[in-house]
Amino acid sequence: MLRETSNSAPVSSVPALHFSQHSRRAADQAISYLMQQGVENPDCISLAAGLVDEKTLPVQLTKAAVDRVLRDPESGRTALQYGTTPGPEHLRRTFRSWLAELEGHSNGLNNLPLDQIVLTTGSQQLLLLITQALFNPGDLCLVAAPTYFVFLGVLEAAGAKAIPVKSDENGMCPVDLERQLKAIESRGELDRVKLVYTVSYYDNPSGVSISEDRRPRLLDLVKTWSRNHRILLLEDAAYRELHYDGPKYPSIWSFDTDREFVILASTFSKSFSPGVRVGMGVLPKELVKPVCDLKGNEDFGSAHLNQNVVAEVIRSGDYRRHVDSVQTGYRVKRDAMVTAARDFFSDIPGVTWVEPNGGMYVWMTLPAGVETGFNSPLFRYAAQKEKVMYVPGELCYPSDWHDRPRSQMRLSFGVQQADGVREGMLRLSRAVRHILG
Amino acid sequence: MLRETSNSAPVSSVPALHFSQHSRRAADQAISYLMQQGVENPDCISLAAGLVDEKTLPVQLTKAAVDRVLRDPESGRTALQYGTTPGPEHLRRTFRSWLAELEGHSNGLNNLPLDQIVLTTGSQQLLLLITQALFNPGDLCLVAAPTYFVFLGVLEAAGAKAIPVKSDENGMCPVDLERQLKAIESRGELDRVKLVYTVSYYDNPSGVSISEDRRPRLLDLVKTWSRNHRILLLEDAAYRELHYDGPKYPSIWSFDTDREFVILASTFSKSFSPGVRVGMGVLPKELVKPVCDLKGNEDFGSAHLNQNVVAEVIRSGDYRRHVDSVQTGYRVKRDAMVTAARDFFSDIPGVTWVEPNGGMYVWMTLPAGVETGFNSPLFRYAAQKEKVMYVPGELCYPSDWHDRPRSQMRLSFGVQQADGVREGMLRLSRAVRHILG
Repeated sequence: MLRETSNSAPVSSVPALHFSQHSRRAADQAISYLMQQGVENPDCISLAAGLVDEKTLPVQLTKAAVDRVLRDPESGRTALQYGTTPGPEHLRRTFRSWLAELEGHSNGLNNLPLDQIVLTTGSQQLLLLITQALFNPGDLCLVAAPTYFVFLGVLEAAGAKAIPVKSDENGMCPVDLERQLKAIESRGELDRVKLVYTVSYYDNPSGVSISEDRRPRLLDLVKTWSRNHRILLLEDAAYRELHYDGPKYPSIWSFDTDREFVILASTFSKSFSPGVRVGMGVLPKELVKPVCDLKGNEDFGSAHLNQNVVAEVIRSGDYRRHVDSVQTGYRVKRDAMVTAARDFFSDIPGVTWVEPNGGMYVWMTLPAGVETGFNSPLFRYAAQKEKVMYVPGELCYPSDWHDRPRSQMRLSFGVQQADGVREGMLRLSRAVRHILG
Repeated sequence: MLRETSNSAPVSSVPALHFSQHSRRAADQAISYLMQQGVENPDCISLAAGLVDEKTLPVQLTKAAVDRVLRDPESGRTALQYGTTPGPEHLRRTFRSWLAELEGHSNGLNNLPLDQIVLTTGSQQLLLLITQALFNPGDLCLVAAPTYFVFLGVLEAAGAKAIPVKSDENGMCPVDLERQLKAIESRGELDRVKLVYTVSYYDNPSGVSISEDRRPRLLDLVKTWSRNHRILLLEDAAYRELHYDGPKYPSIWSFDTDREFVILASTFSKSFSPGVRVGMGVLPKELVKPVCDLKGNEDFGSAHLNQNVVAEVIRSGDYRRHVDSVQTGYRVKRDAMVTAARDFFSDIPGVTWVEPNGGMYVWMTLPAGVETGFNSPLFRYAAQKEKVMYVPGELCYPSDWHDRPRSQMRLSFGVQQADGVREGMLRLSRAVRHILG
């Protein structure tokens, strides 16, 4: 009986493991709980999962590209050997040509030194490597509010503190970024600011893109406030190629003509396949060695075969054609979600949402007071009664920010087909109506 | 003129980047310098590179396996989607059957819970994740002397201290492990010991395997000395399947019947292909969540397509047949290096070497006083005049160990063919004779 009330007394006589502080900070990320919820509620329609649409995945293209990469025994063997830590130069040249096409061949991009390009395991590994390279515990990172919740977890694991910057329908607000920097300076902490992080296209979770006029302004602010040391801007362009309508903006990185302040993180997970885990970073040159030193400890380079396959798909032109078809597929589902939002939520007072021009997410705000968190009545009712899941918006703000909004939801049209999207939105609207009484 | 003599004054007006302490500790790993030397001396015969023999790489096998994985559109799409952070359960089941075969289907291995298996990006990622999960700066890791130099770099980057344990022709010496633990205890630092690390088969660099009788003894010591907390033993079995002759030993892990003290790290990089980057860890169950939390921040799981391909190769039986042919190829090259050592070094007084039963390395000791380091006359003469490269043995000892041996060399028969191995050894013997005068 005593054991019942004691503090998790070990049942076994095996001495306990002592974990590192780093490990303890990395524990209990929201994504684990979400995945667990998904497993425990298999009959739910998931508007939570940020997975890509399985129907977009290029089985034939990949098979054909692997065949071409492995057709010649000698070059095939090279692809099965180790590459190099940042990926071989000839492959980075192909990836640079892909970026040049995206950037409209502007800006002397074909002169971008190949040694500023590092190929990674998805762009997620790049986000982690940048964090490890820059942050000591207690250092500061400015992030859009809301922002990508997995990156908040990465910062937390590094012991870094995320400072929220107001974001509106045009993305991160330069005026608020400056206000935050001033406040940090007045606290004497400017030297602890290492990075500004933003998802610049069809933000995860907010769906908004940073408007064209704000892009150079954000860069200018980072430059201006780099006084005793350089503050970097990490532009996460993961969703850039999931463009459905509206203008195509140049990257923030493209305004940084000396390539000294912006890190551009790209991935082929959304536009091609997450299962190949190929991502790419373009880094200020002084950052390349620290990132590669860390990456060398990690893996001596990401899967070389996969880098070869994606490069082959780019070279052949298959990639561009594939992205066009992916866009067409997602556009239909984006339309389904937006139409369903209008059909099922318009008459609920105080509900608003962002209608995105790309990406995978609709960001919805409920009336203040209707909490959406894991322990809220809405989340439980939605999952258990209506069988629909979403990502609670509060996860997308720094967890130590007491005033963070708690009545928002990230709704993904990634995995569901159009009818599943519509049905999920209907169920969710019923759950919201139920909670509102 | 003043600028010439000033302390690396910045030429640009861009403020400097401030890197993390972690990043500074990860800088300047020996492997970068070695790779640089390789690039700068392209006409050298490299007995340094630990790469696998390109001729062993399974181009046709891999192509056929990819074809089978992607043949069915539905399961093909699943392989191109994200897997899970530790890899999907059905794939881990296949990898468990591979391990069971290696272990001779002993020990109830088919009852090993699948959730103690984590698939990684090579085994290198596992080494890093274990290090991150366990070590705070200042914590201690006992390592064989000599040991895998990349792991020493990983420990250094974590701020951990490596304590060398004597190793002889039977591998890590239990008596010396106990002596070191006693010394640590008497300094009041036993609580800082987190791990004992050993390459248990055909060690990189020493070529020796831990003898069968020492395997349970090392485990027992780890158990005995786990007083207030558990000390783990990390068994790096990277070379296990590169077996050419002599007995096949059970893993140390197989003696740990409760699966509580030993981490088994395996990889398909040596036996199959490093370019697919598939590795596997078997962990004590309490370690699984911390490792997966860290890995989730890193990549959400390693390349799912590649895990599917290696599992398919295992299931089909192609893997076992391939490993047989790989062993045959390396055996010839091992013989070439050992024969060349006998032919060219036997008459040089004070030179000894280990003749390995597997793996990729011959470990050679020169007469005391003949230093082998990067800045030694021997290294420079060998690289520049004789055009042959090796890994200086001193890199394989903790760099803060002042009494570390400095007259040893790791010689690899990995990349060269038999005639290149012999020619490289001839050149190296001439360089040694030159230095000895």
